[in-house]
Amino acid sequence: MPSLPTLAVVGATGAVGTVMCELLTGRRNVWGEIRLFASERSVGRRVRCRGEELTVRALTPEALDGVDVAMFDVPDEVSARWAPVAVERGAIVVDNSGAFRMERDVPLVVTEINPDEVRNRPRGIIANGNCTTLAMIVAVAPLHREYGLRELVLASYQAASGVGQGGADALHAQLTRVAGDRMLGSRAGDVRQAVGDELGPFPAPLALNVVPWAGGLADDGWSSEEMKMRNESRKILGLPDLKVSATCVRVPVVTGHSVAVHAVFATEVDAEEAREVLRNAPGVILVDDPTAGEFPMPIDAVGTDPSWVGRIRRALDDPRALDLFITGDNLRKGAALNTAQIAELLARELSRR
Amino acid sequence: MPSLPTLAVVGATGAVGTVMCELLTGRRNVWGEIRLFASERSVGRRVRCRGEELTVRALTPEALDGVDVAMFDVPDEVSARWAPVAVERGAIVVDNSGAFRMERDVPLVVTEINPDEVRNRPRGIIANGNCTTLAMIVAVAPLHREYGLRELVLASYQAASGVGQGGADALHAQLTRVAGDRMLGSRAGDVRQAVGDELGPFPAPLALNVVPWAGGLADDGWSSEEMKMRNESRKILGLPDLKVSATCVRVPVVTGHSVAVHAVFATEVDAEEAREVLRNAPGVILVDDPTAGEFPMPIDAVGTDPSWVGRIRRALDDPRALDLFITGDNLRKGAALNTAQIAELLARELSRR
Repeated sequence: MPSLPTLAVVGATGAVGTVMCELLTGRRNVWGEIRLFASERSVGRRVRCRGEELTVRALTPEALDGVDVAMFDVPDEVSARWAPVAVERGAIVVDNSGAFRMERDVPLVVTEINPDEVRNRPRGIIANGNCTTLAMIVAVAPLHREYGLRELVLASYQAASGVGQGGADALHAQLTRVAGDRMLGSRAGDVRQAVGDELGPFPAPLALNVVPWAGGLADDGWSSEEMKMRNESRKILGLPDLKVSATCVRVPVVTGHSVAVHAVFATEVDAEEAREVLRNAPGVILVDDPTAGEFPMPIDAVGTDPSWVGRIRRALDDPRALDLFITGDNLRKGAALNTAQIAELLARELSRR
Repeated sequence: MPSLPTLAVVGATGAVGTVMCELLTGRRNVWGEIRLFASERSVGRRVRCRGEELTVRALTPEALDGVDVAMFDVPDEVSARWAPVAVERGAIVVDNSGAFRMERDVPLVVTEINPDEVRNRPRGIIANGNCTTLAMIVAVAPLHREYGLRELVLASYQAASGVGQGGADALHAQLTRVAGDRMLGSRAGDVRQAVGDELGPFPAPLALNVVPWAGGLADDGWSSEEMKMRNESRKILGLPDLKVSATCVRVPVVTGHSVAVHAVFATEVDAEEAREVLRNAPGVILVDDPTAGEFPMPIDAVGTDPSWVGRIRRALDDPRALDLFITGDNLRKGAALNTAQIAELLARELSRR
């Protein structure tokens, strides 16, 4: 029997990397050696992972020698530079950045939807989707298989940790500044004043506010995050002409992205039938009994693997449309979990050789 | 010259009533005597209004004698009982509850959109719209006049004070329980535990969460709030067949309802032209320069009169659709302000007699 494959985690100390180590500890082990990499200021740190205490290393070409699978969670430009190096040194890369997602010769894989795509990797790189797209698409894909998706209108409720640990830290810091004053939030500018310079990575205070902007500016007033939801949904579902309009909004939640979805299909839909489809769908948990307080919410979905879906209604004025609400942990299925699941498909493939 | 009309404010000590008194203080005065009414436990309280210190009275039929215009902000069942009494005693009622809005012989008036409807009041009652509908419709109506509205897909971000002062108080109380613990929001259930029994009027914790449920259960899984957005939009715009799908979500904001809007029109649209339409529309302020940090947000819109609109984009896959984001103060244009504006139209009508 061949030895188990060697795994590298690149970006092991960030918000997503930390969850990657948690997942490696909790999931069935398929890995031999595990090597952790991070940026300069974390090198030498000791991190517990799979019951072992590992030392975080600096990323060098040589340090990647012998790695079979490398999971990357680093900024786009770091992935763009280092993923090809890892491939050159013999690894298959699963990349969670936006650097390769929309490249023609890089598959964009969601393990519940298009797992076979992992084999189409001429560059040795497989991309993981954007965190907002992932939570949503896991629940939308089974409905597409049933009814044939034609259009998505999306409005997101994105958590602070979607921009990394710095986002979560900034929200907490803001909360301590606004808590205790029961008049705050009642006058224009009072929250801005209380939050002061504690904006963190956000363009405006997040505490007691919603910020309809995420990512950078793409064309014609669209944000990069909104373009990702459109382009990645099309690629993952294999629907290059899918109509998508997304509005991305940051909300004062630590972890757990939610999306209000209006989905138009080719055929008439039925809400109870849609519930049955979702009840049986992999990676999905159905919570749809509003009068009993059952609907998807970040405070319940955080720390869990599935996409939580509920509020399922057939549109009153369009028998081919469903309205629903989806929440998923942006650090898990939205990032670390799907990356780990793709890596596990590769581990299985490698151990069959 | 006839004397100025007498105004009654029924429900003067609630979240909306308090703003009504503020508005009566700040706006050009068109009223003679002002009488304040509230429920039993507030009777006798002294409230400053229009520079006078007024004593809150108990609501009796006799106490309404001589009132020309009565603004009601009380629960549906209180309006249903007392509005007809006020009419019997000679008043015209402007009602902010849901009791009469959808009645055929009660006009539903937004002063920027259908002010002439105030004259069609066979029952002596004029209704004010739901707070979520109002902020949104003020910005959507001028686009409808330009392009001919066919469909709305809406997702709301509703503030705690939308359910009254108790909602705002509960959110503040929850904030003090979750502030200071930088790990909160990272594990399923940890926010529930921290918030404990401090739910206030909400079905789940609002701090560090979003709750996709507002109002009661209507048919087929729709909430009453979602049905209001559909039915009231149709009635205010005079479009009985308008297609509307709304998902209503409560967010941890004190005051300021926001709505992500996907609007489909009869003709092709242009984003820059739409901005020009909105720049010239009454009751609207355009804030649409995202890279300069300009987009509509509750912390800026709170305490102001207009609907703030921005993030205006033509849909990438439908030349007849616009995506936009709107925020309005749910206690002002969403409630007290529009009620006061309707009452002022009546004051002008009465003083012409």
